[in-house]
Amino acid sequence: MDGRPPGPISLSRYPVEPAWLGIPTFGKLPLCQTPDDLRAGEVDIAIGGAPWDGTNQDRGGAHLGPRAIRASHLASPPHSHRHHASRVSPFETLVVCDYGDAHVVVGDPALTFRNLQEFVREILSAGSLPIVLGGDHGITWPCATAVAEHYGRGELALIHLDSHADTAPDFQGNRYSHSSSIRHLIEEGAVRGEHVTQIGLRGYFPPPEIQDWMDEVGIRAHYMTEIEDRGLDAVISGALAAASSGPAHAYLTVDIDVADPSCAPGTGAPEPGGLTSRELLKAVRRVAAELGIVAMDIVEVNPAYDAGNGITARLAHYCVLEAITGTAMRKLGHGGEE
Amino acid sequence: MDGRPPGPISLSRYPVEPAWLGIPTFGKLPLCQTPDDLRAGEVDIAIGGAPWDGTNQDRGGAHLGPRAIRASHLASPPHSHRHHASRVSPFETLVVCDYGDAHVVVGDPALTFRNLQEFVREILSAGSLPIVLGGDHGITWPCATAVAEHYGRGELALIHLDSHADTAPDFQGNRYSHSSSIRHLIEEGAVRGEHVTQIGLRGYFPPPEIQDWMDEVGIRAHYMTEIEDRGLDAVISGALAAASSGPAHAYLTVDIDVADPSCAPGTGAPEPGGLTSRELLKAVRRVAAELGIVAMDIVEVNPAYDAGNGITARLAHYCVLEAITGTAMRKLGHGGEE
Amino acid sequence: MDGRPPGPISLSRYPVEPAWLGIPTFGKLPLCQTPDDLRAGEVDIAIGGAPWDGTNQDRGGAHLGPRAIRASHLASPPHSHRHHASRVSPFETLVVCDYGDAHVVVGDPALTFRNLQEFVREILSAGSLPIVLGGDHGITWPCATAVAEHYGRGELALIHLDSHADTAPDFQGNRYSHSSSIRHLIEEGAVRGEHVTQIGLRGYFPPPEIQDWMDEVGIRAHYMTEIEDRGLDAVISGALAAASSGPAHAYLTVDIDVADPSCAPGTGAPEPGGLTSRELLKAVRRVAAELGIVAMDIVEVNPAYDAGNGITARLAHYCVLEAITGTAMRKLGHGGEE
Amino acid sequence: MDGRPPGPISLSRYPVEPAWLGIPTFGKLPLCQTPDDLRAGEVDIAIGGAPWDGTNQDRGGAHLGPRAIRASHLASPPHSHRHHASRVSPFETLVVCDYGDAHVVVGDPALTFRNLQEFVREILSAGSLPIVLGGDHGITWPCATAVAEHYGRGELALIHLDSHADTAPDFQGNRYSHSSSIRHLIEEGAVRGEHVTQIGLRGYFPPPEIQDWMDEVGIRAHYMTEIEDRGLDAVISGALAAASSGPAHAYLTVDIDVADPSCAPGTGAPEPGGLTSRELLKAVRRVAAELGIVAMDIVEVNPAYDAGNGITARLAHYCVLEAITGTAMRKLGHGGEE
Amino acid sequence: MDGRPPGPISLSRYPVEPAWLGIPTFGKLPLCQTPDDLRAGEVDIAIGGAPWDGTNQDRGGAHLGPRAIRASHLASPPHSHRHHASRVSPFETLVVCDYGDAHVVVGDPALTFRNLQEFVREILSAGSLPIVLGGDHGITWPCATAVAEHYGRGELALIHLDSHADTAPDFQGNRYSHSSSIRHLIEEGAVRGEHVTQIGLRGYFPPPEIQDWMDEVGIRAHYMTEIEDRGLDAVISGALAAASSGPAHAYLTVDIDVADPSCAPGTGAPEPGGLTSRELLKAVRRVAAELGIVAMDIVEVNPAYDAGNGITARLAHYCVLEAITGTAMRKLGHGGEE
Amino acid sequence: MDGRPPGPISLSRYPVEPAWLGIPTFGKLPLCQTPDDLRAGEVDIAIGGAPWDGTNQDRGGAHLGPRAIRASHLASPPHSHRHHASRVSPFETLVVCDYGDAHVVVGDPALTFRNLQEFVREILSAGSLPIVLGGDHGITWPCATAVAEHYGRGELALIHLDSHADTAPDFQGNRYSHSSSIRHLIEEGAVRGEHVTQIGLRGYFPPPEIQDWMDEVGIRAHYMTEIEDRGLDAVISGALAAASSGPAHAYLTVDIDVADPSCAPGTGAPEPGGLTSRELLKAVRRVAAELGIVAMDIVEVNPAYDAGNGITARLAHYCVLEAITGTAMRKLGHGGEE
Repeated sequence: MDGRPPGPISLSRYPVEPAWLGIPTFGKLPLCQTPDDLRAGEVDIAIGGAPWDGTNQDRGGAHLGPRAIRASHLASPPHSHRHHASRVSPFETLVVCDYGDAHVVVGDPALTFRNLQEFVREILSAGSLPIVLGGDHGITWPCATAVAEHYGRGELALIHLDSHADTAPDFQGNRYSHSSSIRHLIEEGAVRGEHVTQIGLRGYFPPPEIQDWMDEVGIRAHYMTEIEDRGLDAVISGALAAASSGPAHAYLTVDIDVADPSCAPGTGAPEPGGLTSRELLKAVRRVAAELGIVAMDIVEVNPAYDAGNGITARLAHYCVLEAITGTAMRKLGHGGEE
Repeated sequence: MDGRPPGPISLSRYPVEPAWLGIPTFGKLPLCQTPDDLRAGEVDIAIGGAPWDGTNQDRGGAHLGPRAIRASHLASPPHSHRHHASRVSPFETLVVCDYGDAHVVVGDPALTFRNLQEFVREILSAGSLPIVLGGDHGITWPCATAVAEHYGRGELALIHLDSHADTAPDFQGNRYSHSSSIRHLIEEGAVRGEHVTQIGLRGYFPPPEIQDWMDEVGIRAHYMTEIEDRGLDAVISGALAAASSGPAHAYLTVDIDVADPSCAPGTGAPEPGGLTSRELLKAVRRVAAELGIVAMDIVEVNPAYDAGNGITARLAHYCVLEAITGTAMRKLGHGGEE
Repeated sequence: MDGRPPGPISLSRYPVEPAWLGIPTFGKLPLCQTPDDLRAGEVDIAIGGAPWDGTNQDRGGAHLGPRAIRASHLASPPHSHRHHASRVSPFETLVVCDYGDAHVVVGDPALTFRNLQEFVREILSAGSLPIVLGGDHGITWPCATAVAEHYGRGELALIHLDSHADTAPDFQGNRYSHSSSIRHLIEEGAVRGEHVTQIGLRGYFPPPEIQDWMDEVGIRAHYMTEIEDRGLDAVISGALAAASSGPAHAYLTVDIDVADPSCAPGTGAPEPGGLTSRELLKAVRRVAAELGIVAMDIVEVNPAYDAGNGITARLAHYCVLEAITGTAMRKLGHGGEE
Repeated sequence: MDGRPPGPISLSRYPVEPAWLGIPTFGKLPLCQTPDDLRAGEVDIAIGGAPWDGTNQDRGGAHLGPRAIRASHLASPPHSHRHHASRVSPFETLVVCDYGDAHVVVGDPALTFRNLQEFVREILSAGSLPIVLGGDHGITWPCATAVAEHYGRGELALIHLDSHADTAPDFQGNRYSHSSSIRHLIEEGAVRGEHVTQIGLRGYFPPPEIQDWMDEVGIRAHYMTEIEDRGLDAVISGALAAASSGPAHAYLTVDIDVADPSCAPGTGAPEPGGLTSRELLKAVRRVAAELGIVAMDIVEVNPAYDAGNGITARLAHYCVLEAITGTAMRKLGHGGEE
Repeated sequence: MDGRPPGPISLSRYPVEPAWLGIPTFGKLPLCQTPDDLRAGEVDIAIGGAPWDGTNQDRGGAHLGPRAIRASHLASPPHSHRHHASRVSPFETLVVCDYGDAHVVVGDPALTFRNLQEFVREILSAGSLPIVLGGDHGITWPCATAVAEHYGRGELALIHLDSHADTAPDFQGNRYSHSSSIRHLIEEGAVRGEHVTQIGLRGYFPPPEIQDWMDEVGIRAHYMTEIEDRGLDAVISGALAAASSGPAHAYLTVDIDVADPSCAPGTGAPEPGGLTSRELLKAVRRVAAELGIVAMDIVEVNPAYDAGNGITARLAHYCVLEAITGTAMRKLGHGGEE
Repeated sequence: MDGRPPGPISLSRYPVEPAWLGIPTFGKLPLCQTPDDLRAGEVDIAIGGAPWDGTNQDRGGAHLGPRAIRASHLASPPHSHRHHASRVSPFETLVVCDYGDAHVVVGDPALTFRNLQEFVREILSAGSLPIVLGGDHGITWPCATAVAEHYGRGELALIHLDSHADTAPDFQGNRYSHSSSIRHLIEEGAVRGEHVTQIGLRGYFPPPEIQDWMDEVGIRAHYMTEIEDRGLDAVISGALAAASSGPAHAYLTVDIDVADPSCAPGTGAPEPGGLTSRELLKAVRRVAAELGIVAMDIVEVNPAYDAGNGITARLAHYCVLEAITGTAMRKLGHGGEE
């Protein structure tokens, strides 16, 4: 592309610059556009977007999520970040880049989902860990499929932070719905039901027949009622202990609506009674540090409902930073916080 | 009306339809317009609106609450809802309908309050449990009066979740103020002071002379300072234990500003330092399941301040769903969560 | 349905009631749910919703338009409305009802568009004039097709107020795109190119090759540059004169983004430099009064971007009222304002 | 009060200070609290607030208008303002102060309206010209009554810029409604119908029977349809010419909703199709300069719907500045702009 | 000024008046404009504004904070406030006034900071306790310097509630940055490092070299990770115990972004994962009651991002009220809550 | 940089892609980072950002303007744009790129302004026409200085569309104020007073002494009062005729607040009574086409006040597109529209 040698391109122009200056990649990180760029840069983690919202069932706009999450950083450049307790500096430990967006095709979910799968496959093939910014939760189907095919179908654990189980066979017949991604992954064999851990479920989903199916396939569902009783740290500890006896590789999918609407109003289907930001950020970091992840997505940020102040996009941005921090902690052997 | 036989009318037209489609009754439930409709439908719970805001003392707009709460549902129809822990399905257990709105007359609180009292009386006379969507908190005066007259004056317990005590004799001489409803109920004998349990009080109300009156009449006030010390579950348990030795019938009134402004910004008089959504939803469910209620209102939702994302209206909607769930749990004998 | 005799059902309960009270049909008009209801009520105009937004190319949310437009009325009931200049009272002259919403199926545009076509066909078959509230502009394809099939394919004039020509063959291959509806109507023969009059085009669409196609098929396009030079009244007069020599029946489609973003910010693709509210309302009334219409739609209202004050939804609501007023003026012989 | 000598108090502390600094009186003008203060300061114009919204029929919040209008100034202090064309400097020509707010009593319109009448009477008795910031349009009844009693009942012209005629006898029986103020002034004899000039009426009010009454009492109503045809300048010229043959003293009442919702979204009952800001500001200045006014109010600013940017409050603020400018122009003999 | 005798001036005009009425000083408290006013009124606490935002690094607008905080009160007058648990009435115990704003000079931080220092010095010289409403956090440098010079340089404890340490030497070379105030206080000797207690730090600041400096100078930093583990009450108790062995006088600085963005979205640099409102209000009260304070500031309220509902400004307002309450409790000997 | 050969880099990855996809340069145009890139790409027009807001006098946030303007495009890629009337395709006629942002240094206006001047100089030295996205209006001082030094000091015409004259010597002593840029350009000799044409002035600026200075130095000021009388087209025609007898090179500076607040609410100092979007877009195009420009800036877009719908940013984006279109028209000999 452009005759340039492969490698990350810095869009920052000045050694020190305010956060709002310049063309906004994620956190002002260098941009890669091809797998060769990733390889040449020996990139550990590639952050890409999946700006897709073709299947919204409630309030539309999740396709505008990646751009909002990217622009929501506070400091620039981020290389001096350091986790306070462990004193791990993630950007010294890991090479991280922005990988741009996958090719979404409006009105054609089948083609878009093939593109998303290929997008993630490209990142994995270059040896990088993909972090995908949604888009609606439908994208987890193709993205996790790509990861499962890379590491072995049925050999991938799925840690799923969400207020909804997303295990409906379809929505009004639409299989690409954001309510169905986990169902398809299990039914197609990419992930086995007993390797799926769901945390934060609440509200009035799923209906009985779907909850029965979830029981049948062995999904480990941790409802908010359990979290209220036992505390999130205990639930996470138990979940990670259980997951650690499963597949060696784990995919983390975070639906931002797992957070309470007070913390994440900018989403399509807010469910009152969820996690605080404090709980969510720690949970993400712990999964990455204690269990380890090979891929991640964070979905359902909808800037149209973010109250003009972008707190939801920033929370999602921080979830990504915590996942990177946790990954760095794990690399350096600082896994556990409990 | 319209020559039609009595009974609920479904405004939903299709067996399965998205939540945002069609004319919005509460949760897309069938509509009843007369007591005969309620009787013909053997309706257990009738949800009606009291779109009244004639006495606002701070930021106006609570008269637009019922419409916002109704439209704030996520799924449609709601009949497959099931409570996760108890696996109770409220809409299989109970027949629920929307009863439309009471006749408010702008600028005439006396007439409006008579209309509200009659509106609730109609529902009770048909054998249904009324859930009233406010409107400002002034409406609790006529609504609870109607319930007290149905079950016996002085024989009604009042469970009051609120940041304010609403026990002022008037506001600048105005007796219809939203700050006075509880005072009137007690002074008129509809409810006895010692049967009133208030939970969540905070801020700088009430002033000393009113707090003294509250002590005199025996109101059991649980301030946030107590909740911070003991935890809400313990406070609720104690309150329900105490209440269970009182009258056989209880009225639940929820001022949405009992929730913290982070969870319920869309209200007229937000008081920092309140309940989380998680706490509020569980508290409502526990009151309905463990003590049992014969009527409920939820008030002070003000869409003009709901940040363009409607999280307050949705929280109020969910409070109603939790009250229905708790009522179903109680009917099926699944009362306690602690 | 419900065993009731056919006919419109009033959801208003009281002789006089504030606008915000009760279940919001359009302008608190009676509700019809079947063609038999329309026939029994001898309904002249039926207002229905098409809450569809599956093909958004910019900012999503047009599926929430019908509900916002319906609730945006000021007075209730509207029967005493009277046009100031002509002193025509539209609701005395015409029977108008709300016909609910068509069945949209998320993620299935083909089925949805068949449902929309059938929805409009039902209204026409009952002898009523359909006014459809969008939804994105894709809906004009099935809606106008139904009207063309009723009055004769190729025998329908199309008056199209919009900032965009909507004559792209597809968007990224998606034929159901809101950019393509006019193209399909012409290519499928429902409407002939020379019977299409477009008013208000501006911005950077269409690209040359599409503009060439428009010229070929004979579309009469009136760009804002012409309106700025000649004034809208002159352009409308000329357009109506030209149209009056065409087919006997006309379909009016109004994309709310024909108005300037200052007047209609709540839309997906606002184009600066458009009509004022004053111009738009008069234009709609003149088309209905001077040319006459047999069907109408108004599309692309997106409440998520309506600045928390709903001025776009209200403008759309008024466009509908002006179309009804113009239709009444025409029925009574008060056609011309120029 | 406070033992201080009578006279205006400056709340500005520094010779030059940014607009947003300090306690916000209107435009940072000195504050008067008593008629003696006005007399001691030889105040020409006193700007006071009527923060009343007890009778809202649509979206509530006009009681928060005065505070928003006051704080909406750009420069400070304003004394160097100069009108560009005439080069008149109003604050050199006239002594202007803020007079604080009248005593509104929530829920007691009768007492509030007596207080408002007394508030205006006080200002007039001190020889100052009152400009009242509403509040809802109901306040014009007591305010204009006070002026009529000062200058002679039936001897006051009323220039009324509004989208609504406000000539209903009541709203649902409520005589204090913002829809009735003009009716009461005429029926009580404070102002004679033929001395009332209304400019900007549109929408679907008034209904026929009220319009007939308006014709009977001789109100000169200029609808937007006339303004669209003739232009506002011509309509104003005609109206002022007609008014100049009437009473020697004129009261100007401006409902901010006379402006189009694009210019004034922050109001309770926005009516599409109104005046531009450009038209409105010039109209106000012309009335003050060419006809002359002895009192003014500006009403129905509702900050809750002002889109977070306050353009409606600022427009109202500027209407006041233009009225002051016009008054200064008239004092200096620069009356006419046409 | 104005020839009036010194003393507080009441801007409230009526014995009882709604909160939104009149010219908004803080909580409608009387206004003082000079040290003589403070002395004449024997004022215990003077609340002044520092509307400064010349050094913003993220989202601008903190200079509009004082006005928003002042206007955010609920009740008026506040004199009957009483703390629920201790039943202390702060406004009976202490004389409190509004002292207006310091003179900020846009674009001239050096002059502005001198003015701010003088502003605080004036208050202290009159024997009053200053509470300063920011403004960005840069203002703490001059304000705390003034206090240190009053009580002795190096003899002042600093309790700092914030998500950021504000210990950078500069931002891009700018020493007046809101990221540097604590650094300058320490480096200039106004406050000694070991007398600084920071509570609530989180996010990705400070970078390692700054954190090392903080360790060197002995700052006691309590990160959110500690608060999550131990609970805020325990952390506060420990911090107050440690501080009580230090200097006799303490300055409390509260950056509103110490609260979680759900509770305080209206700020320039929101950091997810912070304190709840409940925690913050209690922490402020405990510091004032148990340790005692001689000055306070509260900074970084930015109304432009406050979601149209002002919950951040109200939270800041309540922080001030809690500080006053705590001070009254301490005066009356009701210090401890734990 | 990065070892790549010089030239524009495309950040778009797919031949056709939705507008919201990928890293947002202006209109998804290729990015240049050095003068060599500009030269290698033979770039005609380079669009760069000046994200500076260090001197705000009213509502802060203009430093966030460039990012908002960039992201506000509708279509992608823009190369098929064609002007409707002239059928000129600007992106076929001209090579246009994004040049990133100049280096702003928070709190150091002197250094920032030197950087801005150098930034523009770089673009000019590469033979490209600079279009600078502000930032506050202070940036015109260094930007136009760079252009004047390139084409000859005193040999540059300035066309200035604005509601404010920006001819104050300083604001509270601050020479970098956005109110002073035109003053400095004239006083320093970069531009001569008689070569400055101001269009759209209104409100209460400038005060008499500044207006007198403007008269003295020969500025040709066209106030809104003139535009209201004569129409904007006539004023523009006259202004361009006059300017065409002046210097051969012209700089166009557009303060977005020249538009009415209804069209451009997202700005720091909105002045009611301004240009419509229709007028502004045509005026910009006419200046570029009929007079010709060698540089442009567009300033004072403030996303914090853009009502959550971004209409101001989009209007600014379109102003840039119209300037490019006009430049292309001029290149092809299609200069005049009147």
